Amino acid sequence: RRARPVREVLFFPSRPCCIEALLAEAAEPGAPARPCPCPLPSVDTALSRLVRRLLSARRSLDLCLFAFSCPQLARAVQLLHRRGVHVRLVTDAQYMGLHGSQIGRLRHAGIQVRHDQHSGYMHHKFAIVDRRMLITGSLNWTTQAIQSNRENVLVVEDAEYVKAFQDEFERIWEEYNPASYSF
Amino acid sequence: RRARPVREVLFFPSRPCCIEALLAEAAEPGAPARPCPCPLPSVDTALSRLVRRLLSARRSLDLCLFAFSCPQLARAVQLLHRRGVHVRLVTDAQYMGLHGSQIGRLRHAGIQVRHDQHSGYMHHKFAIVDRRMLITGSLNWTTQAIQSNRENVLVVEDAEYVKAFQDEFERIWEEYNPASYSF
Repeated sequence: RRARPVREVLFFPSRPCCIEALLAEAAEPGAPARPCPCPLPSVDTALSRLVRRLLSARRSLDLCLFAFSCPQLARAVQLLHRRGVHVRLVTDAQYMGLHGSQIGRLRHAGIQVRHDQHSGYMHHKFAIVDRRMLITGSLNWTTQAIQSNRENVLVVEDAEYVKAFQDEFERIWEEYNPASYSF
Repeated sequence: RRARPVREVLFFPSRPCCIEALLAEAAEPGAPARPCPCPLPSVDTALSRLVRRLLSARRSLDLCLFAFSCPQLARAVQLLHRRGVHVRLVTDAQYMGLHGSQIGRLRHAGIQVRHDQHSGYMHHKFAIVDRRMLITGSLNWTTQAIQSNRENVLVVEDAEYVKAFQDEFERIWEEYNPASYSF
């Protein structure tokens, strides 16, 4: 039986938390949990809920992110990539090189990244899991935003909204094709 | 009969457009349209749709905006205030004084404004019309974002999502009560 569509609203700031158990379970389901030596609690927070939603990806993850510097979220994305999930990432050219950006690391891991060449910002902050679940809001994927800002994220499993954002993603993905870059 | 709930996705950049006809109709419904001398076309754009949704307010408009410098949107909000709509505005302390900010003008017009006292940003960008319609996304209310950035705005008439954001608004509104400011 099909589960009820996900409808969730996450508000930030989120208290800092350890997501090692979530990552370990996603990397090796059913493996015995090893305690993490870090001092952070493994508790249910807005961040842990966001990570859980991302880690639910089985086939594809399309990311359209103005700023991506949070190492915890980058680890989740890398894990999905290693697990065979098809990850595509669109980001902003002016922000991808800033201090702490995770874009280089993700590219190095083999993840496809495309960026704009405009003076305007690629200011979206959304993710689409398995072309089925939309994660969108005000939150840039930075530790500062997660831990310090007032932010919102909607998680929506609704074909109409997902399609609108998926279409926008595909438009941008094509427009930012490196074959079309001008120098 | 109750109309079907609004479900709309707006993508930006929006081409520049004239919203004088929309404002005039909202200020004086049914009055004969006077042509605007500005060179911009009065066409259907993401901006004009956003303005229409805002101008549909009859009783209340709750705004929770990181940055608000777009004069066109400020005029729409002022018009609602003059029309007797109860407008409340929460904004970010670090951004409200920046060049071009409309916050001073809105305060001067008699609109209640509250802001944070934190180092973290009040980074939300949402509006709630008549406690019934949620307008939220990546878009800061700046002309730069509207005309130059890739942005999204969801318009959602869905009691569950509206309640979550209305509760967040009320929490912030109380927390930012000037009676609690410390100096």
